[in-house]
Amino acid sequence: MKILFSFVPNNEIQKDLIEQFPDASFSFRRLSEAGELVSEAEIFVTYGEDLTEENILGFHRLKWIMVVSAGLEKMPFEQIKERNILVTNARGIHAIPMSEFAFGFMLQYSKRFAEMHDQQKEQKWNRNLPLKELYNSTLLILGTGAIGTETARIAQAFGMKTEGVNSDGRAIEHFDQTYPIDRLNKPLPNADYILSFLPSTEETKHLLQSEHFHLMKESAVFINMGRGSLVSMEVLLNALRAKEIAYAMLDVMEEEPLPADHPLWNQANITITPHLSSISSEYIPRALTIFKRNLHAYLNGEDHFQNIIDLNRGY
Amino acid sequence: MKILFSFVPNNEIQKDLIEQFPDASFSFRRLSEAGELVSEAEIFVTYGEDLTEENILGFHRLKWIMVVSAGLEKMPFEQIKERNILVTNARGIHAIPMSEFAFGFMLQYSKRFAEMHDQQKEQKWNRNLPLKELYNSTLLILGTGAIGTETARIAQAFGMKTEGVNSDGRAIEHFDQTYPIDRLNKPLPNADYILSFLPSTEETKHLLQSEHFHLMKESAVFINMGRGSLVSMEVLLNALRAKEIAYAMLDVMEEEPLPADHPLWNQANITITPHLSSISSEYIPRALTIFKRNLHAYLNGEDHFQNIIDLNRGY
Repeated sequence: MKILFSFVPNNEIQKDLIEQFPDASFSFRRLSEAGELVSEAEIFVTYGEDLTEENILGFHRLKWIMVVSAGLEKMPFEQIKERNILVTNARGIHAIPMSEFAFGFMLQYSKRFAEMHDQQKEQKWNRNLPLKELYNSTLLILGTGAIGTETARIAQAFGMKTEGVNSDGRAIEHFDQTYPIDRLNKPLPNADYILSFLPSTEETKHLLQSEHFHLMKESAVFINMGRGSLVSMEVLLNALRAKEIAYAMLDVMEEEPLPADHPLWNQANITITPHLSSISSEYIPRALTIFKRNLHAYLNGEDHFQNIIDLNRGY
Repeated sequence: MKILFSFVPNNEIQKDLIEQFPDASFSFRRLSEAGELVSEAEIFVTYGEDLTEENILGFHRLKWIMVVSAGLEKMPFEQIKERNILVTNARGIHAIPMSEFAFGFMLQYSKRFAEMHDQQKEQKWNRNLPLKELYNSTLLILGTGAIGTETARIAQAFGMKTEGVNSDGRAIEHFDQTYPIDRLNKPLPNADYILSFLPSTEETKHLLQSEHFHLMKESAVFINMGRGSLVSMEVLLNALRAKEIAYAMLDVMEEEPLPADHPLWNQANITITPHLSSISSEYIPRALTIFKRNLHAYLNGEDHFQNIIDLNRGY
């Protein structure tokens, strides 16, 4: 059985795969350089951004695609469905790095580290910076999956109040309260931090409109770590300019990479990071732990795979 | 009974004090402008930096000093002892803001927010920043009091391993392991973050020497949020220059304010913040909660006060 990776894990990881699965034949090659390996591959392991409606035609024997990320919006789902190809992803492995990043964002804001960094460069000792506490503030998390739940758990350790929004408002551990997405207006006026981990779907596209920012506290901080399609840059910029909220922190944008001349760069009261909240040295080891578990199941002819993607929902 | 505050709390707080203690007479005035109020005051409430060996002579009726901070190193202890004046402080109220600040520091480093801030200013979208996780790393805390314990508790929520150093190595909740200060060398080689909350005492002055930095991991981050006297700037600068550790984050320095021409400002791999990790809008309300509890006891002639300072130990 031939397995094609379109990225190259380090030697230790390659060796571990080959030793654990002696009957499989592994190739590690960029898709553009994979040649014959494409048509022979039964299993394809990818970050998910290189597969297109065109090049999937070359995968004659493909049975299973393992996407070692969580975002799947670029996948050619129609053909995958038609050909009944199994898709799994690495959902869940982002919980640790992304929840940590979320607290980095919130503490960056509340403890004013960016201003202190600028002061240090100017060799300026200024103690006149009123710092805030996370303690007792309200964190509203849009998306109560693995990342949102892990973030809520740590938020409770910080003494924050945790509220969540999901599709149907079902209760989730570590959330003091949850709301269905169609009642999003209810928790918005009480939140100090509004933090989105929502994926890109038909339902989440431009979900946040001007009316939502209008409902938020003037002191609220909006954080987007899910997908940029959640809010149009125009709506967000207008909310910031009208001072409807105090600050925005974005790890994701509608347009990535953000073009050098985009007005977002120069907007006051915004922190922009280049979509790297999930980056971690543990990323590939964790993703391959899921892959290896599924590969054992696949080789044994079992069908209980971890993280199967519902091709109709797209996540 | 006359009570002199050498700072001016906001009106709401003043009103609350006057209402809760109708028999006391409160004055809120800087010491240099307090005139007759000094000689009449039985109780003095201060940040602790304005009392000297000279001006304490003017306090003819002083029975109790409430210091609304934790650091007492500037107090004229000899005279206070001779006159048998009660001293209490606000120990414990720093736990929340300072533990939050500690995670701000660690996440600032591990998630490289300072570099991302600089990139944003340059309108540069660069994703090539290897981020680290707090998860699974080892945090060694010097000082296992209220602040250290609160920090260890949250560190465990982040999945960090927690080790602590205190005077006798006694076990403390939320620390996986503790060591006595005279065995400090033992945990140093395993720590990813070495975080000090130690106060300034005879024992802690220049406690950390070159040999200690030599024992730390090359990837270690040293964080000082206690008192600058813990380590001489020379020892620290040498350790950084010799790359014995990866990074230092200092909220306290041997000399404060740090002079504009001090070499520390220009040293690579260091973050300097101007001694404000305890700053919080909740500071005075929390300190006065302790004061009010003690004032009730004082007025009732009781002697079980919260946060009494042992004048022989100085803390």
